[in-house]
Amino acid sequence: MHIAITGAAGFLGQRLVKQLVEWGELGGRAIRRLTLIDQVEPPAPNAEKIEIISQALDITTPGGLDGVLAERPDVIYHLAAVVSSAAEADLNLGMTVNFDATRALLEGCRQYGLAETRLVMASSVAAYGGELPDVLDDMTAVQPQTSYGTQKAMCELLINDYSRRGLIDGRVLRLPTIVIRPGRPNAAASSFASSILREPLNGEKAICPVPLDQELFVLSPTRVIEALVRGAEVPGEALGAFRALMLPGITVSVAQMLDTLRDVAGEATVARVRHEPDERIRSLVASWPVRFETPRADRLGFQRDASFREIVEAYLAERE
Amino acid sequence: MHIAITGAAGFLGQRLVKQLVEWGELGGRAIRRLTLIDQVEPPAPNAEKIEIISQALDITTPGGLDGVLAERPDVIYHLAAVVSSAAEADLNLGMTVNFDATRALLEGCRQYGLAETRLVMASSVAAYGGELPDVLDDMTAVQPQTSYGTQKAMCELLINDYSRRGLIDGRVLRLPTIVIRPGRPNAAASSFASSILREPLNGEKAICPVPLDQELFVLSPTRVIEALVRGAEVPGEALGAFRALMLPGITVSVAQMLDTLRDVAGEATVARVRHEPDERIRSLVASWPVRFETPRADRLGFQRDASFREIVEAYLAERE
Repeated sequence: MHIAITGAAGFLGQRLVKQLVEWGELGGRAIRRLTLIDQVEPPAPNAEKIEIISQALDITTPGGLDGVLAERPDVIYHLAAVVSSAAEADLNLGMTVNFDATRALLEGCRQYGLAETRLVMASSVAAYGGELPDVLDDMTAVQPQTSYGTQKAMCELLINDYSRRGLIDGRVLRLPTIVIRPGRPNAAASSFASSILREPLNGEKAICPVPLDQELFVLSPTRVIEALVRGAEVPGEALGAFRALMLPGITVSVAQMLDTLRDVAGEATVARVRHEPDERIRSLVASWPVRFETPRADRLGFQRDASFREIVEAYLAERE
Repeated sequence: MHIAITGAAGFLGQRLVKQLVEWGELGGRAIRRLTLIDQVEPPAPNAEKIEIISQALDITTPGGLDGVLAERPDVIYHLAAVVSSAAEADLNLGMTVNFDATRALLEGCRQYGLAETRLVMASSVAAYGGELPDVLDDMTAVQPQTSYGTQKAMCELLINDYSRRGLIDGRVLRLPTIVIRPGRPNAAASSFASSILREPLNGEKAICPVPLDQELFVLSPTRVIEALVRGAEVPGEALGAFRALMLPGITVSVAQMLDTLRDVAGEATVARVRHEPDERIRSLVASWPVRFETPRADRLGFQRDASFREIVEAYLAERE
């Protein structure tokens, strides 16, 4: 089995590669080759039985992916994207990377006759927006309030249509907020969600910019990688009439997150979190939906974390 | 007030032009100029107080609409599209006309700084599809099962994003099936819905390709033109967080349509309809939802027909 991954140098891409190499198989078939693609040459782990090809490629260049598609990968993970703040700051950039490159990838698959190739794209909870119900489900309208969400939603529609026409076997996973991300805080509005746990656990101070009662819909790095793998495993027919779905997650408030931190690491650790309200971040985060029923994803075997405590403990175990 | 109309040679376009010329104003402002655009030079009615410019233009040509946009129209009706059957038969053609040309129009508006211009696009009930609830509403997910519906749904998202960013003042109306269309059958999968009434009323034979219990969600030509006008009148803010909405219509089965035809024109007229199942058309039509609650459109003043009989009688009255 040959798996190609765009955005392979990113957080999800790198973690997915590590996991695939560790498992050595996907859906019961041995992985023989991994093609890693990103703007810069993605780091590749050592692997005895898997040929790993790492390439710096601009997926926005016409025909840029031809060489990869000519090798007829069995699975393509399309993780490359510009993040929400960048897509909001520069409409053309977002359209080019998030939409046009995805369309070109679909057209490439069509040209090379990759009807059987399973294309897995990462979408986002940011596809949702507007006047939402308290609890969202598989039939809630996607009315994005960001250009990033718009571009992802357009890709979902196109991947669904190409799949329906039998030109590709696509599946799109809408990701919850991922916590605890490793690394450092970044400019993303969701950055605090990892930061208020990660930094204190590492003996550093952190700032919480939102009220304690703010809720989030979260998924751990471990579970999101399992979901990406599951996304390639499920038969296309099982997805039903639409190829995009929201992944299961758990709903937690900031207060619950900090209580868990206290339970696991003690009062002195929680005391490293300073509460400094930031209206811009507060209003952005408050606009994200936090309660979902995901019967379709549940039925297909996608899994949420058992508890927030499990997420924190997994982070600690991994750090060691 | 200057109004530009793409697809102005088409059925909706011609009818809209006639109505605008008759009323002479839109939203309380006198219409000074109408720019009519289509692949062929659209027929223009006589008008004393309105300057009518009729142009043959290919909207898929880069910069094709520059001359029109440079004149800074106050309202643009974007009605040009290839119909569902054609978009299904030729993916590239559908994407080029239904999606790329709309995107180019939005980009053109952005280049010319037409932030105040009200762009009214016609979308369709065909945007919906898949495993739908019995009754759809404003928050039902759009999961199209045709390339035409996919392309329209992508345009909706893009128009919403350009409007949100303040680059254009867009509004998208999802049209029910329009009956009774005048003229001849066309390539649209919905063509039969008018044909099985119009042809018998005109003494001709017609073919019904779908089962009698197939229901449709319909709107008359008179009401759809009123809706297009209303679509340009409503303030953008009133549309809320998403710029696309389903228009109100009424739900009728083919059996009810033929019963009404019998009531109005007699058994001999109904006998001109031959039932010849066509699986391709049947499955396309069966994917369209037929029951809607449209509180947002109702509140905004969009109106449905009072009864199916009224639709048939209006057609007869108009024909005379």
